[in-house]
Formats: sequence, structure tokens, C-alpha cells
Amino acid sequence: MDTLEALYTRYSCREFTDEVVSDEDIEKILKAALAAPSACNTRNWSFIVVRDRETLLKMNEANGPAANALQTANFAVLIVCDKNIMWPKFPEYYVIDGAIAGENMCIAATSLGIGSLWLGTWPQPNKMDAERAVFNLPENLIPHSVIAFGYAKDKSRIGELNKGLKDPTPKIHWEKW
Amino acid sequence: MDTLEALYTRYSCREFTDEVVSDEDIEKILKAALAAPSACNTRNWSFIVVRDRETLLKMNEANGPAANALQTANFAVLIVCDKNIMWPKFPEYYVIDGAIAGENMCIAATSLGIGSLWLGTWPQPNKMDAERAVFNLPENLIPHSVIAFGYAKDKSRIGELNKGLKDPTPKIHWEKW
Repeated sequence: MDTLEALYTRYSCREFTDEVVSDEDIEKILKAALAAPSACNTRNWSFIVVRDRETLLKMNEANGPAANALQTANFAVLIVCDKNIMWPKFPEYYVIDGAIAGENMCIAATSLGIGSLWLGTWPQPNKMDAERAVFNLPENLIPHSVIAFGYAKDKSRIGELNKGLKDPTPKIHWEKW
Repeated sequence: MDTLEALYTRYSCREFTDEVVSDEDIEKILKAALAAPSACNTRNWSFIVVRDRETLLKMNEANGPAANALQTANFAVLIVCDKNIMWPKFPEYYVIDGAIAGENMCIAATSLGIGSLWLGTWPQPNKMDAERAVFNLPENLIPHSVIAFGYAKDKSRIGELNKGLKDPTPKIHWEKW
């Protein structure tokens, strides 16, 4: 799919069919995450890929009702960031780094006809602690975000232009504020 | 350009030619930012687009030597996030929201043959304060990141597969940590 089409038509898919995403497509999506830039090229993220329904349901419980899409997702990715390899001067850049990698996965998925839903985790301490518990993460790893993937149940929104594009004017400022 | 190709070949372009990016391409890049998801759909970002060299040089000074690409950039975008429209419960999500919009712009640019360089601003207080001063931003606006755009001076890296892709294995974990 053309890049601009993927960027303009990505949407938040909240329910998925039971169609299986191929290993090949999952690899393509992960490759997009690995191609993401990171502050000082620290590449402080890792990605836990989950297909096991039992684990997906545990992740749903950890992230709360807003993450119910995990009940039908074909797979999900937990983005984790590693304190041990963050840029020591400003480690907080990991928040941006993890987000960039996450968006790369969503755009790659869109281009493959696969829906996605971003399930915010950072900065909510209860969700972060609960995801940490699900995966028994060591202290140096920070749960950043969960992203659910799968084929859309409601196919009517596939290819829909993002509604936010309709009136861009108030968001764009030329040369000055 | 195919979406996966754009995602896999985006790179940090640090010097630009004096070729002008068309208004049409700038609009396409901004449209990608506006299509970005945001926590609770708050769309708390805005984008200040700068072509004026004098302002670009002020932005360079504000962001320091790591932002010297602004000396040759054809244009730059300052992403700002608005405290007044953030999700009140967890306003910090703006850090993720701004990053997603920024990456969408970099990927759109890549697909149009335009190079980009992400100039980290948040969470560095001195850079944030200095960018605020350049644009005389009101208190509710938080400078998030600057992204420089233009046509690459060194054309040898265009289309180069991101080096980080070579050995993805250590970053990917299946089903568990």
C-alpha cells in the first residue's frame, strides 16, 4: 500500500475476526518497529509478541476495560523499555522512543490490511505494574504500551480517511505561533 | 512509495540541499501528522511550520549544536502540545501523542523522497524554554520536538535499509520475557 494512504487511513480497530495473521506479516510489522529511530540511537526498547489467548486475557485484565480488544486480537505486542540502556543524561526520552516504534507497527499493519489498537499503559502506574506482573518483568524494564492487532470485524472502516483530517487549519501555524 | 519501504529506509538526514520542498508536499506531510491517533482522541498537538531562515537559525540556537541541520533544512516543524486540551486524568500522554505525530511526518517525508531529522526537545528543560522563547509561546503550550526536513545532500543513504534491522533477534521476545 502507498505510504500516504496507510498514514491517512489508519484507524483504531476495536474488534477483530478469528482470522490468523501470518508469521510473515508479524515479522514485517516487527521489522518496522526495529527500524524506528531512538534518542542517541540507544534502541532501548524490546517487544514481547503474544498470541496465546490466556496471556492476552491476562494483559486485558492488567490494562483494564479499555483493552477489551485483546479478547479478539490475533496477537498483541507489549513494548518495554530498558533503563539499563537508556541515554543516561535524559532517560525520559524512552517515552518518545517507544511511541515511535509503536506507531511504526501500526502503520506497517495498516499497509498489510491488518487493524490495530493502541492500548495506553505508560504513564498509568496501575496498568504498568499489572503488565509487569503478567510478564514477571525485571525492575529495569518499563512497560510502555500494548498494541493489539488482527483483522477488523467491521470492515466498513477499512480505508476510511481519518476524520481528524477534515479541518486541519486550527492545528497548523505558519512561521509563528 | 510502498509503506514498508518507507518504514524500513527512513534515516536521520543531517544536511540538506537548497532545493525547495513544494507546498503540496509540506501539506501531505502535515496531513500525516493530523491523521495520528492521540490518547482519548484529545488531539492536543499543534504544528508550527517554519521556512524563514532567520527563525530556523533561532530554533537551531535554542536546540543547540545537535540541531545544526536547521542551518540547511528547507523547513522545520515544531510540535507543541496544549495543556488546556490534554486528557485531565493523565496529561503526560501528550509525550506519546506528540511522538506519534512526529513519526508520521518523518515516514510521509521519506515516501516523498524528503529527508528528515528528529531534534529532541522534551524532556530537556533548557531546549524547551529556549524554543518557547523563540515563538513567544503561551504557558499552556509545551514544546515537544523539532523536526527538520529537506532534500538530502548526501544521496548515497537514500533507500538504505536501516542498520538496526540486521539482527533483530535480541529485541523480540515471543509469548514471554
